[in-house]
Amino acid sequence: MADATATVLAALKADGENALKRLFEILAVPSISTDPAHSADCRKAADWCAAQLSEIGFTAQAHKTAGQPMVLGQYKPPLDNAAPHVLFYGHYDVQPPDPLDEWTTPPFKPSVVTDTEHGEVITGRGSSDDKGQFMTFFEACRAWKTAQGGLPMRVTVLLEGEEESGSPSLGPFLKSHASELAADVALVCDTTQWDKDTPAITTTLRGLAFSEVTIKGPSRDLHSGMYGGPVRNPIRVLSNILGDLYDASGRICIPGFYDAIREPKMAQIEQWRSLGFDAEQFLGSVGLSRSAGENGRTPLEQLWSRPTAEINGIYGGYQGPGTKTVIPASATAKVSFRLVPGQEPEKILKGFRTFVKERLPTDCKAEFNGEGGSPAVGFDTDTIAFRVAADAIAEEWGQRPVFVGCGASIPIVQSFKTVLGMNTLLIGFALNDDRIHAPNEKYNLSSFQRGARSWVRIINRLSQVPI
Amino acid sequence: MADATATVLAALKADGENALKRLFEILAVPSISTDPAHSADCRKAADWCAAQLSEIGFTAQAHKTAGQPMVLGQYKPPLDNAAPHVLFYGHYDVQPPDPLDEWTTPPFKPSVVTDTEHGEVITGRGSSDDKGQFMTFFEACRAWKTAQGGLPMRVTVLLEGEEESGSPSLGPFLKSHASELAADVALVCDTTQWDKDTPAITTTLRGLAFSEVTIKGPSRDLHSGMYGGPVRNPIRVLSNILGDLYDASGRICIPGFYDAIREPKMAQIEQWRSLGFDAEQFLGSVGLSRSAGENGRTPLEQLWSRPTAEINGIYGGYQGPGTKTVIPASATAKVSFRLVPGQEPEKILKGFRTFVKERLPTDCKAEFNGEGGSPAVGFDTDTIAFRVAADAIAEEWGQRPVFVGCGASIPIVQSFKTVLGMNTLLIGFALNDDRIHAPNEKYNLSSFQRGARSWVRIINRLSQVPI
Repeated sequence: MADATATVLAALKADGENALKRLFEILAVPSISTDPAHSADCRKAADWCAAQLSEIGFTAQAHKTAGQPMVLGQYKPPLDNAAPHVLFYGHYDVQPPDPLDEWTTPPFKPSVVTDTEHGEVITGRGSSDDKGQFMTFFEACRAWKTAQGGLPMRVTVLLEGEEESGSPSLGPFLKSHASELAADVALVCDTTQWDKDTPAITTTLRGLAFSEVTIKGPSRDLHSGMYGGPVRNPIRVLSNILGDLYDASGRICIPGFYDAIREPKMAQIEQWRSLGFDAEQFLGSVGLSRSAGENGRTPLEQLWSRPTAEINGIYGGYQGPGTKTVIPASATAKVSFRLVPGQEPEKILKGFRTFVKERLPTDCKAEFNGEGGSPAVGFDTDTIAFRVAADAIAEEWGQRPVFVGCGASIPIVQSFKTVLGMNTLLIGFALNDDRIHAPNEKYNLSSFQRGARSWVRIINRLSQVPI
Repeated sequence: MADATATVLAALKADGENALKRLFEILAVPSISTDPAHSADCRKAADWCAAQLSEIGFTAQAHKTAGQPMVLGQYKPPLDNAAPHVLFYGHYDVQPPDPLDEWTTPPFKPSVVTDTEHGEVITGRGSSDDKGQFMTFFEACRAWKTAQGGLPMRVTVLLEGEEESGSPSLGPFLKSHASELAADVALVCDTTQWDKDTPAITTTLRGLAFSEVTIKGPSRDLHSGMYGGPVRNPIRVLSNILGDLYDASGRICIPGFYDAIREPKMAQIEQWRSLGFDAEQFLGSVGLSRSAGENGRTPLEQLWSRPTAEINGIYGGYQGPGTKTVIPASATAKVSFRLVPGQEPEKILKGFRTFVKERLPTDCKAEFNGEGGSPAVGFDTDTIAFRVAADAIAEEWGQRPVFVGCGASIPIVQSFKTVLGMNTLLIGFALNDDRIHAPNEKYNLSSFQRGARSWVRIINRLSQVPI
């Protein structure tokens, strides 16, 4: 089998120039999903992806949806071997390129330029997010076909075209195509490495719970001169309650909030601490000098393994220019909680509601609206899939990937878990300085090449084990 | 002199039917200052008022302004006596009558109807606020002319036509006509009695100080997943600070906030306590059951003699439908303070700024915008003007007027003090149930008749003393 990999890697290398041409073809399509004027471009990109998959042995099709098409490709090895079935996910849509005048090369005319800091880089919108990334997988599959006649296991590919615009069609599609999509493990190529030399697998994603609380006081807006004194102002009540959410040590004061948390293993925390995360740079880039998070936790732990309570929005009373001396009848805050493994959104929201109600003074009511959420995802990295994927990446990079967390949610991963019952290997080769969603997006040429090589090896290793 | 009053009161009584006709004439003019479509009506009302004044011996004119005309009338007694000079103020403009379908009689077709609760009442927009009220003064002047050939002292009348729309022309007019307007004392007929049997003089008005505070944190809006934890949310900081404004006893926690306050005299507080203010009804009418004000103070003291800190508006982050998991770069609150005598707006605002700055955590800044204010007004009621006005009112009503406070500001009174150096006697005959600014505004016929009689007596008494 080691021999098979060598031949596939050789085929990949031999076809390097063509691989870049293929990437340039799809990068030239302005498949901006959020802009209806680019619907035809999205269809074009979807058709191009389906044609690529067909070319390398997949049964593939761009499926119509209420929004942009969903590309679905199936590869089944001719012999029914014992290898697992993997689902690969990516997205062919891109962010709008604005502001256009900040681009030094045109966003939809890709090129390879030499950058003093990164060497050769591929330029253009989508070069990193996510066209360059998913094409590393496509090229790996193509090389397997060239060298070995096909992939060594069953592979399903799902590309959506609405990732940058809220993925409205994804949930329904997952449900209606569950039997085709349900695999043993999902592979997602839409994340970053730790740095250019250190590959990474993202193993935890925070969850989310959200609520909108409205404090109601007097039956109507009142004149602060005629009523100010005996009447309690709902904005004051809301401020008082929200001001109680955190204690001075940065801990959230909702009773039971931390009770069910499954802390990361000590070895995991030690690995994070060894990463040399530059908190000063991280905070400095947004105008801050010091972490304001929970005492006794590093900034990386605060981001990856600790929950938060945020007030995402607040409003009440007069918000126009000048003054209006009103005591408003109500005040509202949009509150959300980032959750970590173990916390259940509904319990957290219940705790929040109780916390608010216990602090309501006489004559005030609280209303809660628009609640929802999803739990955190934390994969057990002591499993075969994670181990062999890490082994394969280590072969390519000369060092084992670090297991990193992500402070945000990636809904597709949570859907794969809840709708299709699959774990996900989040393996990406992007770098933090790829300027995704910004002008002058780039993908290092080495990311593209070593990304494809990594997939060749991951496919090889995964095909040899039961998952 | 008691004889003079008797003849004037007799003349007033004899002319009662005509007085009502005159009032109906001006009530029929829809002089809605806030609606440009009614500019001609405002001019018509101003001209009518000037003509009335001319008819009763004033040199009067409707002066053009950038907005609605200002009516100015001067009456100088033929003999240069030692009597003081008084300035009477009222306004001829009215609130819009909406919602029209809630009126049981047409708003601009005045009538006298019998109401089971109040007896005969004059109906129509402006019947109480302020046409009915200022006409009590006009009719008193007319009766003096009829019975005695003229008024016993110098009287200047100022009527504005923008009281219901922010009085933009008033300040400039006061300054440009200061020499004609500066009198020994001002008389304003735009307030209420305590109840239908208890006349009142309003002797204190709260002042105001206002500021808009913006808390700034990160240099831009951040994704709460990617940054939540180490980054402090400006809405949380603002809530924390605002939540500290009051202690549990309802006192404001800004250091020095109460230091300079001149408390009302004990006799004044005792008089207020004896008024039998129905706090339950007052709060109940706006959906509340219990005073939330400062411990140890009655609701009436809280309204009339105690300062407040109100958050009139707050905003920050996402305020649209649904959720957006943002950590905003800033959050803003509009804060205002109702002030009582002794408190200086600038000192209060300085204390507030210090209070905010002392609570700012690392990496947060506070900006203050749109600040301003005016001090409270509290008249010394142990002066000749207040004493003789009270004596005159007592003659008419069989009981001395109570000295009441007002929780709001009346800018004209503060301008009379600051621009013209005059104290004001706020004497009105309206009742709290006159439904001003609402459908079915009314003025009791007895308010109209006894109001005019009261002015006959007040003019008589004031003309006999040095002020």
